[in-house]
Amino acid sequence: MPEPDSGSRSGARAKSGAEGRAATEAATGAEIGAEPPGPFRVRPIATRRGPDPKQDRSARTRLLVLTAAAELFTARGFRHTSVQEVADRVGMTKGAVYFHYPTKEALAVAVVEQHYARWPLLLAGVAAEGHGPLETAERLLAGAALAFREDVVVQAGARLQVERPQIEAELPIPYLDWTELLTGLLTRAEALGELRAGVRPRVAARSLVAAFFGAQHISDVLRERADIVERWAETAELLFRAIRAD
Amino acid sequence: MPEPDSGSRSGARAKSGAEGRAATEAATGAEIGAEPPGPFRVRPIATRRGPDPKQDRSARTRLLVLTAAAELFTARGFRHTSVQEVADRVGMTKGAVYFHYPTKEALAVAVVEQHYARWPLLLAGVAAEGHGPLETAERLLAGAALAFREDVVVQAGARLQVERPQIEAELPIPYLDWTELLTGLLTRAEALGELRAGVRPRVAARSLVAAFFGAQHISDVLRERADIVERWAETAELLFRAIRAD
Repeated sequence: MPEPDSGSRSGARAKSGAEGRAATEAATGAEIGAEPPGPFRVRPIATRRGPDPKQDRSARTRLLVLTAAAELFTARGFRHTSVQEVADRVGMTKGAVYFHYPTKEALAVAVVEQHYARWPLLLAGVAAEGHGPLETAERLLAGAALAFREDVVVQAGARLQVERPQIEAELPIPYLDWTELLTGLLTRAEALGELRAGVRPRVAARSLVAAFFGAQHISDVLRERADIVERWAETAELLFRAIRAD
Repeated sequence: MPEPDSGSRSGARAKSGAEGRAATEAATGAEIGAEPPGPFRVRPIATRRGPDPKQDRSARTRLLVLTAAAELFTARGFRHTSVQEVADRVGMTKGAVYFHYPTKEALAVAVVEQHYARWPLLLAGVAAEGHGPLETAERLLAGAALAFREDVVVQAGARLQVERPQIEAELPIPYLDWTELLTGLLTRAEALGELRAGVRPRVAARSLVAAFFGAQHISDVLRERADIVERWAETAELLFRAIRAD
C-alpha cells in the first residue's frame, strides 16, 4: 500500500509521481513530453502530427492497443486479461503488442496514465465556460461522472486503481491530484465569498473526492455505472448545499 | 458483476441473499440460525454456551480460524492468502481447517458474513442510547468508522467485497442493507421534522453510504485507515448539515 509522507504529502507525491513516470518511460520507451504544472501532470503519449508518417502510424497503433486493453481491463480486470487477447482484439501478433508495451503491467500503467490525462482536458473545457470557481468545481465533477459512464479508458483506469494491490507496477497514487485541484478551486471560491462560513477548502475537497469515488464505485458494482450521472447529481446537490454560502 | 433487478431491487436482494446463504450453508455445513427481520439479516455462527462442550469448543475453533483468515485477507487479499497459511497461523493442520471451512471461498464468505453481522450489534448499542433517528444515524456511521479502523473482520470483509470480481463465490450484495437501514432512520427523522425541507430520505441515505464507502476506501489506500475516524467525521459534518433541518 502506498503511504505518502504525511508531513509533506505534496512533496512526496510529486517525487513519487516523477519516479513512477521515469520507470514507465524506461519500461515503455515512450517520449518524455513537457509537463504542465500543478495537479494531473501528464505525460502525453505521442500524438503529434509531424512530418514523420511512420511515427504518426506508430502513435495510432499505440492508441488502438491502449483502447483494446482498456476494454478488456474494464470487462475482466487485470488478472483475467492477457496480452494475447489484447493482440487478438486489434488483429496484431503478441510480439507487435510487446513492441509498444513490453509487459501487461506497462499496458496497465499506460491505461491509468491516460485515465488521469482526461482530467486536464475536461478542466480546460469547463474553465473555458468562464464560471466562478465553485460552479467550475461542480461542473468538473458532473463532467467526470459522465466520463465514468461513457469513457472506457476512464473506467479501466478506475478498475485498475482498485486492483492496484494485485498489479506489480507503480501506478500513480490516486485521489490526491483531484483533492489538490478541488482544494485550489475552493480556496479561490472562499476568497470570493462563495463558501459557507467555517467550511475549509481542503476538508470540502476531500469530502467531494470521497463521495465521488464512493458513488462511482457503488454505481459500478450495482449497475455497471448506468446510473452514475444521476447518483452523483443527487450527492453533489447535498454536498454543495453544505459548502456554498447561503 | 451482480445486477439486481432495478424494478424491484429489495425483492431481488432478499432472494439473492437467501440463495447466497443457502449456498454458503451447503458449503460450510453451518447451522441455520433464526433470522432477525429487516436489513442485515444475519446467520450467526454457533456461539451458544450450552450443555455440549464439544460443540462449544468447535465454535471457538471456528472463531479462531475465522479471525486468522480475516487477518490474512486484510493484509494480503484473497488471492495471496492460502488455507495452509490460515492453518499455520492457528497451529492447526490444513485438514482441520477444511473440516470447518471446506474451501478458501467458504472462508471468505464466512468473513464477509461476519463483517455484516457486526452492524446489527452496533445498531443495538446505539439504539439503546435513546437518541432521535437522525442522531442515531450519525452515531451509527461514526461507530462504523471506528470499526473500520479497529476490527480486522470488518476490514477483511471490506477488502473481500472490493475483490469480489476475483472471488468465485456468491458474496452478499454490498451497500444495499446500509442504504435500507439509513433510509428507515431518515424516514422516521422526516416524520419528526428533523430533515431539511426537500431532502428525500432515500437520496440522503444513498449519499451517506457512497461518501462513507469512499472515505474508508481512500483512507485505506492512502493511510491504511489510520485516519478514517477523522476523515469520516469531517465528511459527515458536511452531509448532515445539508440533511438536517436548520
